[in-house]
Amino acid sequence: MGFDELRGRLAGVVAIPVTPFDPHDQFDEAAYATILTRMVDGGIEVVTPNGNTGEFYALSKAETRQAVELTVKTVGERATVLAGVGHAVPDAIAAARHARDAGAHAIMIHQPVHPYSSMAGWIDYHQAIAESVPNLGVVLYVRNTRVGGEHIGQLGALAPNVIGVKYAVPDPVRFASVARDAGLDRFVWLAGLAELSAPGYWVSGAVGFTSGLANVVPSLSLELLADLRNRDFPAAMRVWERIRPFEELRAADESANNVSVVKAALARLGLCRAGVRPPSRPLDAAAMARIDELLAGWGVA
Amino acid sequence: MGFDELRGRLAGVVAIPVTPFDPHDQFDEAAYATILTRMVDGGIEVVTPNGNTGEFYALSKAETRQAVELTVKTVGERATVLAGVGHAVPDAIAAARHARDAGAHAIMIHQPVHPYSSMAGWIDYHQAIAESVPNLGVVLYVRNTRVGGEHIGQLGALAPNVIGVKYAVPDPVRFASVARDAGLDRFVWLAGLAELSAPGYWVSGAVGFTSGLANVVPSLSLELLADLRNRDFPAAMRVWERIRPFEELRAADESANNVSVVKAALARLGLCRAGVRPPSRPLDAAAMARIDELLAGWGVA
Repeated sequence: MGFDELRGRLAGVVAIPVTPFDPHDQFDEAAYATILTRMVDGGIEVVTPNGNTGEFYALSKAETRQAVELTVKTVGERATVLAGVGHAVPDAIAAARHARDAGAHAIMIHQPVHPYSSMAGWIDYHQAIAESVPNLGVVLYVRNTRVGGEHIGQLGALAPNVIGVKYAVPDPVRFASVARDAGLDRFVWLAGLAELSAPGYWVSGAVGFTSGLANVVPSLSLELLADLRNRDFPAAMRVWERIRPFEELRAADESANNVSVVKAALARLGLCRAGVRPPSRPLDAAAMARIDELLAGWGVA
Repeated sequence: MGFDELRGRLAGVVAIPVTPFDPHDQFDEAAYATILTRMVDGGIEVVTPNGNTGEFYALSKAETRQAVELTVKTVGERATVLAGVGHAVPDAIAAARHARDAGAHAIMIHQPVHPYSSMAGWIDYHQAIAESVPNLGVVLYVRNTRVGGEHIGQLGALAPNVIGVKYAVPDPVRFASVARDAGLDRFVWLAGLAELSAPGYWVSGAVGFTSGLANVVPSLSLELLADLRNRDFPAAMRVWERIRPFEELRAADESANNVSVVKAALARLGLCRAGVRPPSRPLDAAAMARIDELLAGWGVA
């Protein structure tokens, strides 16, 4: 598909599926397919295997490939597959080419984990990866306050297939400035800190948002999206309040239980086991009880 | 060697060698061996292949193995080899076992890059890796303010081979508290932010410090070490002032040029090329001129 069509498709709920594990801590393919199918049946149109909610940094290289292949096989053309890639440049390029060959539509480049990043080197890093798959769309994952609109704009001029930015710095003023400086129309702007960040970023140019909640209750994420698209912000904020306690549990203690909360809810719904890999940890009993309350409140328990 | 002997050996200058690249961006083994030999000839007793100054996150898995093997081959028993390992648990375990089989004496576990870390999960992560090489010493690399003395102490009780902590949070009060809560005598405490942090951490329990400068002028690092061991803090601070401009160049702009500065200086000395990998970038002409001044001031140009 062309980049214009792809840009249109990326504007919406960009769901990040969890990676379920079986009792032997192996990739549970059946549970993954079930969760993915349930999301897409529920109306989710973009899925990101190997995102942070998929525990990307706890997966082996073989498992990341398995996730991409299984996602494409499961959703077919019913959803857009945005595959997460990262690590050192040669590893990211190999993963991008694998995603292309497996049938993914686009890649999301994780923020470099290298501790010493110059902004010129940040551009080099993303350009090298984007150029390795010129026919695939590329979405940047920006969590670094130092990355400005000028850097994103320069990268976009060098790599035409960079078409989207998942902006995950918790600062709507910075988001608005960066998006305008980089080119509001040049890129698809996604609120990268999920549902709670979406309204504040929507008013200044976001046209979509990332979601881990969509694993559990896709209808809530889609209801928020519909309200935002209608610019009915009071209605959006009513959905926001219903989502809020779940996302607050995920964000607590510097996001210690970000994925654990999602998997715990999925486990309560019988969709996968709650197991997560270190340095994450499953929830304690008190937090599980809170999950039960939330699910009951949403009417999905 | 026993853990007591190893603890004694780790107390000192813990040098992190750069990973030089040839004109085709391949691992330059000859240059690596030259720099390493020059350091050890100069009196450096601990070397850390695959540290951050070695651009760990820009190396392929094959290159990280190459670095460990070449280090052991080059230094033999003239220095203690502390091999950096990281990434997902199975990858870190494979790297730790490779380091053991290659003849390394200890491993340093990089801080997990996973964005969602609970403190219980942080312990799980390090315990799993430490237990995979029970006869090797393990040094933790702590850059997270949330990691407290109680967490390090719990980990130490579970994994007796965890014998050292490279503490890299820029806060000497936190360092002093964490070291006391974890056990000042249970672990070897290393000032993990290199020479400039060493005096402030020494007074509260550090017995060594990490160094990238040792690639360039090992005698300066060793002079600082001698002054600190003698508790001659006025003399230590005089060396500190001579080191300061170099380390300030490395720290500027959130450490954008941390490795680039070291490699630029090595290039001026004819020891390796200045090339670094994205997201780092080689220095511009103005910064190179500053390096020339510094080298001339140290009398090594």
